[in-house]
Amino acid sequence: MRVAFQGEPGAFSEAAAMQLLGAGITTVPRTTFDSAFRAIAEGAADALLAPIENTLAGSVVRVYDLLLESTLVITAETILPIEHHLIGFAGVSLNEVQSVASHPMALAQCERFFNARPQVRRIPAEDTAGSVRQVLASGDRSAAAIAGKRAADFYGGAILAENIQDNAENFTRFVLLRPANSAAPEGSKISLAMRLAHRPGALLASLEPIALHGVNLLKIESRPIHGQPWEYQFFLDMEADSLEKLEAAVAATRDAVSELRVLGRYPGARAHFASVPDISSTK
Amino acid sequence: MRVAFQGEPGAFSEAAAMQLLGAGITTVPRTTFDSAFRAIAEGAADALLAPIENTLAGSVVRVYDLLLESTLVITAETILPIEHHLIGFAGVSLNEVQSVASHPMALAQCERFFNARPQVRRIPAEDTAGSVRQVLASGDRSAAAIAGKRAADFYGGAILAENIQDNAENFTRFVLLRPANSAAPEGSKISLAMRLAHRPGALLASLEPIALHGVNLLKIESRPIHGQPWEYQFFLDMEADSLEKLEAAVAATRDAVSELRVLGRYPGARAHFASVPDISSTK
Repeated sequence: MRVAFQGEPGAFSEAAAMQLLGAGITTVPRTTFDSAFRAIAEGAADALLAPIENTLAGSVVRVYDLLLESTLVITAETILPIEHHLIGFAGVSLNEVQSVASHPMALAQCERFFNARPQVRRIPAEDTAGSVRQVLASGDRSAAAIAGKRAADFYGGAILAENIQDNAENFTRFVLLRPANSAAPEGSKISLAMRLAHRPGALLASLEPIALHGVNLLKIESRPIHGQPWEYQFFLDMEADSLEKLEAAVAATRDAVSELRVLGRYPGARAHFASVPDISSTK
Repeated sequence: MRVAFQGEPGAFSEAAAMQLLGAGITTVPRTTFDSAFRAIAEGAADALLAPIENTLAGSVVRVYDLLLESTLVITAETILPIEHHLIGFAGVSLNEVQSVASHPMALAQCERFFNARPQVRRIPAEDTAGSVRQVLASGDRSAAAIAGKRAADFYGGAILAENIQDNAENFTRFVLLRPANSAAPEGSKISLAMRLAHRPGALLASLEPIALHGVNLLKIESRPIHGQPWEYQFFLDMEADSLEKLEAAVAATRDAVSELRVLGRYPGARAHFASVPDISSTK
């Protein structure tokens, strides 16, 4: 299977694709989310793996937007711990490092490392994995980069310091997107996008069937609709212990809203990760 | 009034502070959100202006986290259109520009500009306003940066191309944070953080009073609670046409949840910006 992702080879998205589908896949790196979403239509990929939310940074709004514009559906998900390592030349000691390159988000997630080393220069880059490639290509042994283990492996860098991020609870949820006709939906988790009728209590009415059918609401988020002032879109993830409950809840929710789109039904990855929460209190 | 913000002088946050409070304020730039949040306790500022959500990028999760950790409250909000300009040396034509520096988020929001000019080198920076400062300090007339108008004015740069962002609907909502005892709450908008009891229908029960009292729900978002797997926090913004309705709804919601914290009551800025939506359909 050929799987497109946004980023350079060695990126967290590529690591997530291999975690989900095994090392036998062919990964197709693309520079932007827009071009990654075009890869299937262009015949360059069979599927697309995209980050959809991160525990520290929230939802990846651009991916939600592109998902709504596309006809692709979510067929699987996987959750990857984001572990930032300091990567450089083998044999270099931490004291010899004079500059550290990475994406500003990764630099900002390692404040404690930089605060303890005020002499180290921060060098912003467009990509975490790409910063490893650039550092190693420069030949400058005092330079290092912040990225994931896969980037170190891919470019032949050495890990000079492990897990230098401030917050250990850094997880990203990735979704696998495929053409709707490529596989039958399976699994007990479902992602929806819905719009509400213009009447009082419309949000409440849309959530009642979910509670009524004993379905767990895992996520809810309101988002303004581009180009339609005063209109909001709601994104919901939910999971049930039986397909019947899930289908009954979705059917009743559909009746309660003005527009409902199933973004995909797939097996929830949560059960495999004890540290990743659900909203079990809101069933 | 001394107002702290995250970023370099000329940043969008500084422009937002002046839009809200006038040009007579003293702005206090800080390099990180963490240090900006410490500025009041350190006696360096009387208030803090922070971005809380952007129409293209979603909620600023780090600001929500720091707000929850602090004892500050929201006392006002302001909405700023984010207009990215190409800024460089006066008299330089667009064809002479060979490199463009900015924060990767700003670079990514100007894809169309770069697609039309494949020869232009993208240079990632940690800050939009800071990239203008660096370009002008370099003396290299072929270099330019992407930032807001205030950065051009502040550093004496010339706008070489106006509004080069792909999506014109780019707005950021900023909130003014002050110590809780600094001013009485006023206005008809309220921001809440709440946690739910562990029982079926808890989310539904928390939203019922809002509908019952005819209060508009402007935003709802679920977020995992750091360090507490399986627990979620909900953030809500709501607005009413009378203070009585708002207070009745908050009191009843408080009874329906296990924990409720008012993050602030303040006048809603929305009315002044026709293109910024509410969730009027969900009253």
